[in-house]
Amino acid sequence: MRAILVIADGLGGRPTDMGGATCLERARTPNLDELARKGALGLMDPIAPGVRPGSDTSHLSIFGYDPLRVYTGRGAFEALGIGMEVRGGDVCFRANFATVEERDGRLIVVDRRAGRLAEGRELEGAINQLDLSDLGVGFSFRASTEHRGALVLRGEGLCAAVSDTDPHETEVPLAEARPLEDSEAARRTAEVLNEFSRRAYEALRDHPVNRRRREEGKPPGNALLLRGAAVMPHLEPVTEKYGIRGACIAGGALYKGVARAAGLEVLPVPGATGDLGTDLAGKARAALEALESYDFVFVHIKGTDNAGHDGDAQAKLGFIERIDREFFGPLLEGLEPGGFHLVFSGDHTTPPAVGEHTADPVPALFFGPAIRPDRTTGFSERAAGEGGLGRFSGRLVPQLLSYCDFGPKFGA
Amino acid sequence: MRAILVIADGLGGRPTDMGGATCLERARTPNLDELARKGALGLMDPIAPGVRPGSDTSHLSIFGYDPLRVYTGRGAFEALGIGMEVRGGDVCFRANFATVEERDGRLIVVDRRAGRLAEGRELEGAINQLDLSDLGVGFSFRASTEHRGALVLRGEGLCAAVSDTDPHETEVPLAEARPLEDSEAARRTAEVLNEFSRRAYEALRDHPVNRRRREEGKPPGNALLLRGAAVMPHLEPVTEKYGIRGACIAGGALYKGVARAAGLEVLPVPGATGDLGTDLAGKARAALEALESYDFVFVHIKGTDNAGHDGDAQAKLGFIERIDREFFGPLLEGLEPGGFHLVFSGDHTTPPAVGEHTADPVPALFFGPAIRPDRTTGFSERAAGEGGLGRFSGRLVPQLLSYCDFGPKFGA
Repeated sequence: MRAILVIADGLGGRPTDMGGATCLERARTPNLDELARKGALGLMDPIAPGVRPGSDTSHLSIFGYDPLRVYTGRGAFEALGIGMEVRGGDVCFRANFATVEERDGRLIVVDRRAGRLAEGRELEGAINQLDLSDLGVGFSFRASTEHRGALVLRGEGLCAAVSDTDPHETEVPLAEARPLEDSEAARRTAEVLNEFSRRAYEALRDHPVNRRRREEGKPPGNALLLRGAAVMPHLEPVTEKYGIRGACIAGGALYKGVARAAGLEVLPVPGATGDLGTDLAGKARAALEALESYDFVFVHIKGTDNAGHDGDAQAKLGFIERIDREFFGPLLEGLEPGGFHLVFSGDHTTPPAVGEHTADPVPALFFGPAIRPDRTTGFSERAAGEGGLGRFSGRLVPQLLSYCDFGPKFGA
Repeated sequence: MRAILVIADGLGGRPTDMGGATCLERARTPNLDELARKGALGLMDPIAPGVRPGSDTSHLSIFGYDPLRVYTGRGAFEALGIGMEVRGGDVCFRANFATVEERDGRLIVVDRRAGRLAEGRELEGAINQLDLSDLGVGFSFRASTEHRGALVLRGEGLCAAVSDTDPHETEVPLAEARPLEDSEAARRTAEVLNEFSRRAYEALRDHPVNRRRREEGKPPGNALLLRGAAVMPHLEPVTEKYGIRGACIAGGALYKGVARAAGLEVLPVPGATGDLGTDLAGKARAALEALESYDFVFVHIKGTDNAGHDGDAQAKLGFIERIDREFFGPLLEGLEPGGFHLVFSGDHTTPPAVGEHTADPVPALFFGPAIRPDRTTGFSERAAGEGGLGRFSGRLVPQLLSYCDFGPKFGA
């Protein structure tokens, strides 16, 4: 029995999105309607009723983890998602290459993104050659897209209660990290960060890449701004708990990160861009291929959320119709009837009328031989409110895997 | 106002059980359908969505306790259920009389059940005469059915983090209990167990019962194998919390144990066997009698689960029809209309198509003057999905007792 979870980011909507109807209600979705007719619907509060979720916290909750207990910040999952090796207890930061100038013995931030430089991977080596062993910590740095990257600190007595070195504005000094609580670990972590910051500047200042950029009149990437300290929680991988192999098909680093923390292998999918131009048929093909060797495949589709943030209801409607036609069409054609359970939902609601995540419950569709069918005949928010699965908080993955009869019994 | 909770173990099912329908959907249940018409239905996740429950954890949750906080193992409730006096903090074990042989100075287990001996109660005294006061612990042993029994240890500095002395196979030595965590309590508990094990063997080796069994060519019950260490949690009895008197009518030791922990008195019911041959009309009579002097009566019916584990959908269907006719028929006839609230549900789903507990939500029926009727006209899983009570996790007993207006207000 195979398990498939498909999350269309920000799927849910509000009646205000399209003059009395949501995009999902207006969209033509014959494949999803057919699944609803044969399966059952419910309403999911991603975390809890009235909690407005981030994408990270909602995905943790969907995978069965309690974000109120394990979540300290987005950085940890982003670091995992760009392929870094991150262990429970590591302290992670989001990082920017930035341009600083020495003035009166101080480092003044003049461009927080170093002109969105493209040479992050060339500069990465200089950072990773730094030696922090005298401070008793290990670290790893990785550049990702443009000026972005992530830093992971590992060692005894570190914690995430430190302020950013990113001043979040220009023409001010590079900030000193400060302890945010009265603890030895916070003081020590702040000291390590400040020392790292100083040594990173020394390693980057005269780097050949930056000399070349200066010659070309471009701002050099001569400092690293760190923000969003987060501890990687110790999570029991769902793959271990349920004794299965799982794979992730996603474009965005964050979703790959949560999936990796949950024990899933992140598959490379060319054309999975994480935006409205993504290759949906390619994702369906990749999912079908993955289902040949994995028990559980998680597919993340981002475009619905982008259209919601852009406030573009027509684009969201169009993208939902593309998901139905280009993704679910070939996926369902390629699957063996009766051999799988499928869940389709969003990670939260992003109504174009609001342009941001809202706390509204999200429609969820369950399909497969173990699902007791309900009377719903189409897939939408209102139909989900009348669905046979009622209303529940997160936990799509535990429910899906349990319908497939994976996993242990709690108690005897 | 009287409160009645009836749990048919493993009641829920899947469409795969009977070619597109569950046993409950196919069963003729006129009494339950009538209750559904007049009352209201809902869907219960015994513990939480996607958690596959044991019978012990699900009953704790149904009684309003959080099994994730209080549950350490089944042994504690089994010991309570066979009538032992168990207090919060006691460490309990499930026990077997077994046959061991001395070979090269070691005790080799040759029969883990001592030929399923019938003389457990005769041997019990020899065990309880042991003196462990030099080890600073009190204990109590009780034989139950055949070779089975339970051991309860009481004293400061004991814990449940110890391995079994039961090797779970034959032709290997009686196992040494080992500490499962690095703590003084775990080391001490392991030492106590090993010393108990040694002294039990000395007391049983030449016991007259065993000498007789040897003469008759039967394997002697000359050792006790201990397994499943569990701490009895400190639970606030629901009877105290709600200021009521409660009674339990059940066949199985586990259910009696949870009921005792919740403060209920366990009533002896001849013919309540805990299997498919149980006397359902006798249980109804016992419930009616108990309702004359108790505010709350909990009736547990096991057969539905047995049929589910056996994968026998026809037997499950037939037993559900018997529950409707033989139990609910006389029960409803004997009750004063308007004078009681009744809840009927299962403790989890045991689909014959699976043969094991699953995490699927369970239909729950509420009936009584305080219940707002919904539009459901029959009792089944799908009807429950359309029920007016929605979907909720466990807590049937707090809901039932609250509809009866028992119990305190939380807050002012």
